[in-house]
Amino acid sequence: APGARLDPEIAARLRRDEHGLVAAVVRQYDTGEVLMLAWMDDEALRRTLQTGRATYWSRSRQQYWVKGETSGHHQYVRSVALDCDGDALLVSVEQVGPACHTGAHSCFHRALPMTHRSAV
Amino acid sequence: APGARLDPEIAARLRRDEHGLVAAVVRQYDTGEVLMLAWMDDEALRRTLQTGRATYWSRSRQQYWVKGETSGHHQYVRSVALDCDGDALLVSVEQVGPACHTGAHSCFHRALPMTHRSAV
Repeated sequence: APGARLDPEIAARLRRDEHGLVAAVVRQYDTGEVLMLAWMDDEALRRTLQTGRATYWSRSRQQYWVKGETSGHHQYVRSVALDCDGDALLVSVEQVGPACHTGAHSCFHRALPMTHRSAV
Repeated sequence: APGARLDPEIAARLRRDEHGLVAAVVRQYDTGEVLMLAWMDDEALRRTLQTGRATYWSRSRQQYWVKGETSGHHQYVRSVALDCDGDALLVSVEQVGPACHTGAHSCFHRALPMTHRSAV
């Protein structure tokens, strides 16, 4: 809506970085699987809460993007939670198709080798 | 270890922000619950992989911190994965006690009101 602003009570609780962004951790609402990490400014969060469609700020393209708009891999938002210090959101979504642009279900599909081996 | 560096093959895959940091999403390894979001630079990631103890860079205090070092709420790292574009890590941990400094189990305990209501 023209002139619409994020609820001031929510806006007051955000601790944005120098680019005006907070991190958005995205998970599948029912399984809890972590799908991706993206970024939101106040307007992206407002759109997400009001439209129920996950909307992010692209740092590389410097524009808003509605997840699935071009890929068809929509994210229907079930809930959003803010963390204790206000710099991260947890967005619970119903993910249609894969979340990752590579076609993988989750973006976190490259395991790093741990050199530590537990004694137990 | 003095002079130790992060594996160059891993370092080459990181896409750091202007502060040299990547986001670290932390989840409980077995339940999948998302516990917190923190930040790592190369050295924090090296220590995490080598020691098996979650180690972050504090943006507010500008220093490394080993989770649980003062609180006793340790995070024993089971695995670490990098996302597709290299700017976020998913750290799977065995969390001892609450992850949040408020005493909540997860830092994401403040639900935001959604103004969207699904038609279904």
